[in-house]
Amino acid sequence: MLRSCAARLRTLGALRGPPGGRRLPGREPLPALRSFSSEEVILKDYSVPNPSWNKDLRLLFDQFMKKCEDGSWKRLPSYKRIPAEKIQDFKTHLLDPKLVKEEQMSQTQLFTRSFDDGLGFEYVMFYSDVEKRMVCLFQGGPYLEGPPGFVHGGAIATMIDSTVGMCALMAGGVVMTANLNINYKRPIPLCSVVMINSQLDKVEGRKFFVSCNVQSVDEQTLYSEATSIFIKLNPAKSLT
Amino acid sequence: MLRSCAARLRTLGALRGPPGGRRLPGREPLPALRSFSSEEVILKDYSVPNPSWNKDLRLLFDQFMKKCEDGSWKRLPSYKRIPAEKIQDFKTHLLDPKLVKEEQMSQTQLFTRSFDDGLGFEYVMFYSDVEKRMVCLFQGGPYLEGPPGFVHGGAIATMIDSTVGMCALMAGGVVMTANLNINYKRPIPLCSVVMINSQLDKVEGRKFFVSCNVQSVDEQTLYSEATSIFIKLNPAKSLT
Repeated sequence: MLRSCAARLRTLGALRGPPGGRRLPGREPLPALRSFSSEEVILKDYSVPNPSWNKDLRLLFDQFMKKCEDGSWKRLPSYKRIPAEKIQDFKTHLLDPKLVKEEQMSQTQLFTRSFDDGLGFEYVMFYSDVEKRMVCLFQGGPYLEGPPGFVHGGAIATMIDSTVGMCALMAGGVVMTANLNINYKRPIPLCSVVMINSQLDKVEGRKFFVSCNVQSVDEQTLYSEATSIFIKLNPAKSLT
Repeated sequence: MLRSCAARLRTLGALRGPPGGRRLPGREPLPALRSFSSEEVILKDYSVPNPSWNKDLRLLFDQFMKKCEDGSWKRLPSYKRIPAEKIQDFKTHLLDPKLVKEEQMSQTQLFTRSFDDGLGFEYVMFYSDVEKRMVCLFQGGPYLEGPPGFVHGGAIATMIDSTVGMCALMAGGVVMTANLNINYKRPIPLCSVVMINSQLDKVEGRKFFVSCNVQSVDEQTLYSEATSIFIKLNPAKSLT
């Protein structure tokens, strides 16, 4: 549970616009640390091309950016850290001061953004509100190795969780992962690009059902399929 | 599929003993690169205490090391990289030279060992052959953040996949993940220690069924439960 909330909150914060217009458009260096205090944080958007992106990822990125021109799709920015005000719900309802020390929090980074350019998760997500679909373009770098030459199953699960979670968030608000069920069909070669296509299948009360598949760029190879269930958070109730 | 094979092959290699006795017992620096060529690789075992391990992890480590004294349990070493000869099966049967370039392979690191000490996955696994059980002691560092203050669901999935995969490997040989089904029940605070208890439930032909739970050190909090299916590799058949 709560698996994808951070990424979602980061995105929501970004979509609402950064406080005081402090976000930099490029990939400028970030301050080394942030804390849960009210200090200012400069946000850098990592879901834009960098020199490590290969030709496939750049081509797909351009194709989806074209789809964004008429507003039917939108690109979701993502960050390593977010300003304290964006995570107030977590501080109030979920974070137990006994469990989480301020000192430890000063080093935190979003898992999927914790590698240097090209070594780990390179990705960008696009969302269609009309279709309730989230597409993630993902290039897994050499630090994500599982079987020799292939992406680790946990790294694939991470990107699936992030994508379906973001889909549920965009459709339903702040949610938590309750279940993730993945069928692995073929190994994904390191440094190749795959597309994770997710869609909201149904909503039952506070439950959001999202499914996805992971395919090659030419859509000829199905690497994985997954289903997931998310629960909409009740901010009046602590979950820890 | 194939999600956990690398970790398993690394472990198998280690259990059989390093070639030429070149493995260093401590946490000495590694050469920066390795390739699939026949170059020598110095292995460093990462599943031993380092200064980032907190009190809980050290205490549990000592407890399990005591269990190892009579041979009923054994500690599994793990490495960032392995010598080329240990992955010959993958090179022969799974790695397609068209897909995986030698140049990219020179940078690869096992996903779960690709962070500096304390920042990412700190863990050690212990196996009981009599009980067909694998226990992983896991401390998730600040670079594994998902929801603010908590471990990312993908990082939890990664450690679950690694643990159940290792359990299947030790019981059945080189296997691949076919399914991973995780129920997330409570968020895991960053920098805390959890125990992942896995066991082989049954074997049907080439299918290995493994289940696990993720609990707090005092066993009072159940964080997650998971089931998985692994398929024993048929080395005569390419899977890509």
